[in-house]
Amino acid sequence: MKYYIGIDLGGTNVRTILVDEKGKIYSHIKEATHAEEGADAVMERIKNQIRNLDCDVCGGLAGVNGIGIGVPGPIDVKKGCMLMAQNLPGFEGYPICSTLRREFGLPVHINNDANVAGLAEAVLGAGKDYKSVYYITCSTGVGGGYILDRKVVSGGLGYAGEVGNIIIVPGGYKSGIRNPGSAEAEASGNALTRQGKAILGDAIDHAGDVFRLAEEGNEECARLRTNFIEGFSTLLANIAHTVDPECFVIGGGVMESADCFWEELVESFNNKLYPGMRNRIPLLPSEIEFCGAVGAAMLPMTME
Amino acid sequence: MKYYIGIDLGGTNVRTILVDEKGKIYSHIKEATHAEEGADAVMERIKNQIRNLDCDVCGGLAGVNGIGIGVPGPIDVKKGCMLMAQNLPGFEGYPICSTLRREFGLPVHINNDANVAGLAEAVLGAGKDYKSVYYITCSTGVGGGYILDRKVVSGGLGYAGEVGNIIIVPGGYKSGIRNPGSAEAEASGNALTRQGKAILGDAIDHAGDVFRLAEEGNEECARLRTNFIEGFSTLLANIAHTVDPECFVIGGGVMESADCFWEELVESFNNKLYPGMRNRIPLLPSEIEFCGAVGAAMLPMTME
Repeated sequence: MKYYIGIDLGGTNVRTILVDEKGKIYSHIKEATHAEEGADAVMERIKNQIRNLDCDVCGGLAGVNGIGIGVPGPIDVKKGCMLMAQNLPGFEGYPICSTLRREFGLPVHINNDANVAGLAEAVLGAGKDYKSVYYITCSTGVGGGYILDRKVVSGGLGYAGEVGNIIIVPGGYKSGIRNPGSAEAEASGNALTRQGKAILGDAIDHAGDVFRLAEEGNEECARLRTNFIEGFSTLLANIAHTVDPECFVIGGGVMESADCFWEELVESFNNKLYPGMRNRIPLLPSEIEFCGAVGAAMLPMTME
Repeated sequence: MKYYIGIDLGGTNVRTILVDEKGKIYSHIKEATHAEEGADAVMERIKNQIRNLDCDVCGGLAGVNGIGIGVPGPIDVKKGCMLMAQNLPGFEGYPICSTLRREFGLPVHINNDANVAGLAEAVLGAGKDYKSVYYITCSTGVGGGYILDRKVVSGGLGYAGEVGNIIIVPGGYKSGIRNPGSAEAEASGNALTRQGKAILGDAIDHAGDVFRLAEEGNEECARLRTNFIEGFSTLLANIAHTVDPECFVIGGGVMESADCFWEELVESFNNKLYPGMRNRIPLLPSEIEFCGAVGAAMLPMTME
């Protein structure tokens, strides 16, 4: 059995785990990131988490086969650093991989958080029986990861899977640096919350409120739900015609309300495909808990 | 040196060539397809073209390493047949590969015409220095092909690259069985011709007329040109955020008017990318003559 360390570095929390090649978790440490302290301080925190993992199952750190780290933003796989780091001050260009490699003498691989979550689902989770998986996370924002033959497709510049910037409503709402009418601006948890608040004010705290009110008969929330399904299915169909994955795996916080939209999403998606594709590309809910850290741990395994 | 036979089977013409692994053409036969005679008759025509090729350079057919065939529509790579064959009656499900394999005792591979054109560009043409290439053909219709590590990504169902069905104008024009507002309906040669005729009638014969009149100062044609650039750049940006190819190669008849839109297309495309991607994914005009037949010949080579 081989053992790997996975790190899920987020703007709020950082999580480090020890897993075996089947995804079984043996040790698990989670702390606040304290990103405001800067990159050096956060890297020290990560090193301490690694040192404090209980690695008895493989005879200590010497028995670990590699380290993987997932980060929130596009990455330079070769240089082992982040290209953009909006939530992690000082991390743009910071040599994450070489720092950990020097400290622990182990292979270290980096990738985007959505890409590694997709890798976890493709190798161990809902997509494990499929050769090609497109993972989409719909949460505050929208992200994705394309996994082909159990390997992350990072793209030439590390931006593969950045599907939150795909245009689904030309000339639509502009969120941050993304395109007007991007998937993130029109069909994310944030989008639903923003749209719901504009109509119902403080009655809306998060996307789940919009779905709940729609179920309860609120017509305006029902319209927002319909727009969400239309936009999200457009995103999925556009990806399907670009790479034709064997399945989609869909995760993220918005999936907590899946009961309120799933059936219609599947129908709307299939209606946007060529007849020969219909009902032949399954949409699967994600399965893996801590998929960010578990998928990060799968990076060194799938790069071997 | 290895030698391959490539077949470009279209609804109007069928072309068969003998090339070496560098794409040099040694023999070349082109005839009308006469698709209306049915699949058996067309297959006989193809077999005769193969028999009539001048294969002296490799000591006859026995010196050929494999056969590839490109066809107009999505394909089942494993079964070696077409899944949809709108312009080739009787070819849906017809065992093209096994028929040729039995006749000539050579490996035979099939793929979509846009995929093989992309393969030609990725292996021998404008994309030959790049590990990942997304090829787009903008002609009567819009098609594409994703080539990763010099191999066609066909997708789970053989529909990868069917980017003509990507939605770029939700609720837009409906062309054939495609989605309303598909790339083919909004940003193809046909779309420009249709839109131009609606305004200027018989003054418009093909997309080139729209571009020419726009150059000459016709404001309505200038608006159609702007819409085309906006739509086509949306298509390219959406694909870029899905797989982040190292380059795009763009071919097809509309490229004959490239002087009238290229510079603005490049600018509009880059404006729709994340800052870190801008001016780093080149758009390259296609280079290979007879890319359908040449790319088909590359199929057995890249599958070896």
